[in-house]
Amino acid sequence: MTEGNGSDAGAEPMRWNGWGDPARARELPFSVRALLPLLLGRVRRPEPAIGLDDVRVAPSALNADDLAAFTAAVATGHVDISHEARIRHAGGRSTPDLLRRRQHEQQVPDAVLRPGTHEEVQASLAAATDRGIAVIPFGGGTSVVGALDPERGAHRAVVSLDLRRLSGLLRLDETGGEAVLAAGTTGPDAEALLSAHGFELGHFPQSFRYATIGGFAAARSSGQNSAGYGRFDTMVTGLRVATPTGDIELGRSPGSAAGPDLMRVFLGSEGIFGVITEVKVRVHPIPQDRVFESWSFPDFASGAEGLRHVAQNGAGPTVIRLSDEAETAVSLAQLGKVGKALAKGASVVTVYEGENIAERRASTAARLVAAGGTSAGQGAAEDWLSGRFDGPYLRDSLLDAGVFCETLETATTWSNLQTLRAAVETALREGFADAGAKSYVMCHVSHIYPTGASLYFTVLAGIRTDPLAAWAPVKARANDAIIAAGGTISHHHAVGRDHAPWLAQEIGETGIRILTAIKRELDPHGIMNPGAVIPTAAVRADGD
Amino acid sequence: MTEGNGSDAGAEPMRWNGWGDPARARELPFSVRALLPLLLGRVRRPEPAIGLDDVRVAPSALNADDLAAFTAAVATGHVDISHEARIRHAGGRSTPDLLRRRQHEQQVPDAVLRPGTHEEVQASLAAATDRGIAVIPFGGGTSVVGALDPERGAHRAVVSLDLRRLSGLLRLDETGGEAVLAAGTTGPDAEALLSAHGFELGHFPQSFRYATIGGFAAARSSGQNSAGYGRFDTMVTGLRVATPTGDIELGRSPGSAAGPDLMRVFLGSEGIFGVITEVKVRVHPIPQDRVFESWSFPDFASGAEGLRHVAQNGAGPTVIRLSDEAETAVSLAQLGKVGKALAKGASVVTVYEGENIAERRASTAARLVAAGGTSAGQGAAEDWLSGRFDGPYLRDSLLDAGVFCETLETATTWSNLQTLRAAVETALREGFADAGAKSYVMCHVSHIYPTGASLYFTVLAGIRTDPLAAWAPVKARANDAIIAAGGTISHHHAVGRDHAPWLAQEIGETGIRILTAIKRELDPHGIMNPGAVIPTAAVRADGD
Repeated sequence: MTEGNGSDAGAEPMRWNGWGDPARARELPFSVRALLPLLLGRVRRPEPAIGLDDVRVAPSALNADDLAAFTAAVATGHVDISHEARIRHAGGRSTPDLLRRRQHEQQVPDAVLRPGTHEEVQASLAAATDRGIAVIPFGGGTSVVGALDPERGAHRAVVSLDLRRLSGLLRLDETGGEAVLAAGTTGPDAEALLSAHGFELGHFPQSFRYATIGGFAAARSSGQNSAGYGRFDTMVTGLRVATPTGDIELGRSPGSAAGPDLMRVFLGSEGIFGVITEVKVRVHPIPQDRVFESWSFPDFASGAEGLRHVAQNGAGPTVIRLSDEAETAVSLAQLGKVGKALAKGASVVTVYEGENIAERRASTAARLVAAGGTSAGQGAAEDWLSGRFDGPYLRDSLLDAGVFCETLETATTWSNLQTLRAAVETALREGFADAGAKSYVMCHVSHIYPTGASLYFTVLAGIRTDPLAAWAPVKARANDAIIAAGGTISHHHAVGRDHAPWLAQEIGETGIRILTAIKRELDPHGIMNPGAVIPTAAVRADGD
Repeated sequence: MTEGNGSDAGAEPMRWNGWGDPARARELPFSVRALLPLLLGRVRRPEPAIGLDDVRVAPSALNADDLAAFTAAVATGHVDISHEARIRHAGGRSTPDLLRRRQHEQQVPDAVLRPGTHEEVQASLAAATDRGIAVIPFGGGTSVVGALDPERGAHRAVVSLDLRRLSGLLRLDETGGEAVLAAGTTGPDAEALLSAHGFELGHFPQSFRYATIGGFAAARSSGQNSAGYGRFDTMVTGLRVATPTGDIELGRSPGSAAGPDLMRVFLGSEGIFGVITEVKVRVHPIPQDRVFESWSFPDFASGAEGLRHVAQNGAGPTVIRLSDEAETAVSLAQLGKVGKALAKGASVVTVYEGENIAERRASTAARLVAAGGTSAGQGAAEDWLSGRFDGPYLRDSLLDAGVFCETLETATTWSNLQTLRAAVETALREGFADAGAKSYVMCHVSHIYPTGASLYFTVLAGIRTDPLAAWAPVKARANDAIIAAGGTISHHHAVGRDHAPWLAQEIGETGIRILTAIKRELDPHGIMNPGAVIPTAAVRADGD
């Protein structure tokens, strides 16, 4: 055991109390600063950001025997109880997470373990089971649903299991287009390793620069190119998982009827059953060409109708994304085009990569035109692409300016899309109004399927009281509205602790019983990520 | 309770001891009859088919209280203990099943229940749980893996739960392209109901004429058009399931990250957790055009390379199927083209439906030509299509002629395809040789994926001893070879009882523990399809 320096091995360092690389932080454009008071009225002066050394945490609850056991499990130097490491593993990157990082007293794990091999993960879980210590698997640290909260459950201590030393391209089958990646490999590292062989994974969620392959799998991520390459859960062809009571390797064949597909038990399990250590994924040759085209629609409904016809009619774009009127206006404002804002209808961005671009573009264009779309050149699509990973930086700047900013998302059938959108928007608007805050709600569709689509909401609010306290009931109201209007509690952010209280309404009590039965079997002492996914009340308190 | 007439409600009557409609039975073509002695030598005179009245079965083990309880569960007239009904539900349609139908003593269920609603299924499971009676869910009766064997496990009786009265199109969302079908709806009934609205499901396994929608889901079926419309498990967007301890409804949205996808727990569960009563599926407008094209390749390996490039490069055919040299020769012989047989290399059939046929055909053709293919016109593809559901009739004729005929299938990566094919062929050939039988092994690829493909074997053998006894060790040897060579124990026939002993080698002991934990939770008394999927030894014997 050593007191390490808290650096994030294998990734460029991320701000401990905000998003990403401090060097990339973005100032709010003047045009946006000018717009905000019009939209949100006066805002409260925010809690100022504080220094890492100003944070007070409880002493580590681990005793010398615990530390010795964990040090025996992982190589020397990879059990870290430093102030910085513990704070850096205190949670994810939701807006509440970031607001909590501005507080002087913070909840943190009792140590950070950094296993370097599958066997060290096994040994870590065995030691934690023996000693009755909870384990929070930690990849890129980008969860926005509370999946990384240092919750100890019924246990006397909790450790964060940082998986980023499990990094690398373990195998590549160029004939079959399959790669096995260590679970802690970050998005950029995976792409760099594959590109050396001419291949690409092509999974680009907004968290891409920091999130890990194992995290994509554990949280059922969906990326910006999912229209072309599929959701991450459909890209995965194999998994290796260490659980507290045994290993499992899955994915012998591309299609199978050998009983239920048990990979699906672990995809979306968010660390409650065990730790994904290796992920086999479908990869494709790096596309040679890329074509952009933007579209303008009179309104969100006609744009959605265009997207539906594209989704239901074979090969379309690699990326397709529809912003509603409110998001279109703010996007234009960000680009300094305030004059054009607020009167531009709904915009659609399309990007084409790979085979048969001309045919796919022509058939997509025909469908978008039929739905009322007008081609708007390639500029807006290129602008979107260049800034597509920067949204979280903008949120940091908004928070610094006292503006509350958060996102949430869901999905439903095409038939129910407008109803669900209206229900969530109403819940958000009325929720903030009840808290005395003006709000501005934007929505986009970024993932389409033949039978339906996702809805992604970004909300800005001028909260004049404690934003953490004000947001909780608004978020609960939005979740209630999602469930009541037939949406899923999450399309790609996952469940974590924040959505767990709503999961039973989506999968029923029988569904919760299935998850609980699997957890009891694989993790009989309940050490794995307690409180995540399955509401705590549903898990039998075995304790230790 | 009544003694019914044993007819199969909702489907055209199927031969009780063979395949399908007696009126469609096919004579062996003269050319095939001429070929068989050359391939297989002299064969044994088969056990003759017997009449239904000649079969002896044990009296039903159900007592008056049992019958009263089941009659209270399903409507009067739908508890059937007739000789005919019990024999008609004695198993599926594997070759061993058909050979057993030629025996004078047969194992049969103690009764057949025919629930007409979801609630009657619930009530049936409740009565069976109360009374400690095993339940075998029964759809079209087309299992070829022993999933329908009347095994009572630790229980004192076993009933077959015939689901074909659960038939109909319950809901259709034309905007989203989703239909909810009752689980007992047969393939033809589903297509007829959908076509009235201009839609098609497009799932055509060889069992299509008899199998049910719920069976497709429970067994993870794959159909002849799966290249175009996907495996059945990827077409399903929702499920309603009755288990002995509660219901579950799944499938709120087209994509979700709301924890693990629990639909996947029931897809492939083959009735061991409960009974699927409703299935929501993706449907598409009936395609207007259909184009056929056949191809000839020098050999199987070059044909497989052509299919790989088609699978890895976007939109291709709706159907694509590669027959090896042996299957190509016999197909030609069936068509009376004996002169051309045995010297024609490997044939590929393609069918295109739906959008952009010209573009898809052109890009597919370019890839097949590059791999060494030569276009062979449309005749062979049309011949294949017209006879595609008739293979099982041919098997009946072969069995009547004393020729053993059975199929088995697997899948693997493109990189491993030739190795797996050789391993399975060797196991089959050597297995039969050890039994003193000449054999003829044919293979085709009927399902392709970017990362790999299925392998489907048809074996003919001239067995001169008891064919049931001779086949068992050959089949075991083939299964061992599949596992040793990295294949899946089933690509689309499922596990049933026949493959259960091999499942642990595919999903590991941890995988078996997961399935067992789910079963214990949902079916604590183990009444559901005992012995299927999970090897019996793995299930805690609760009995009663």
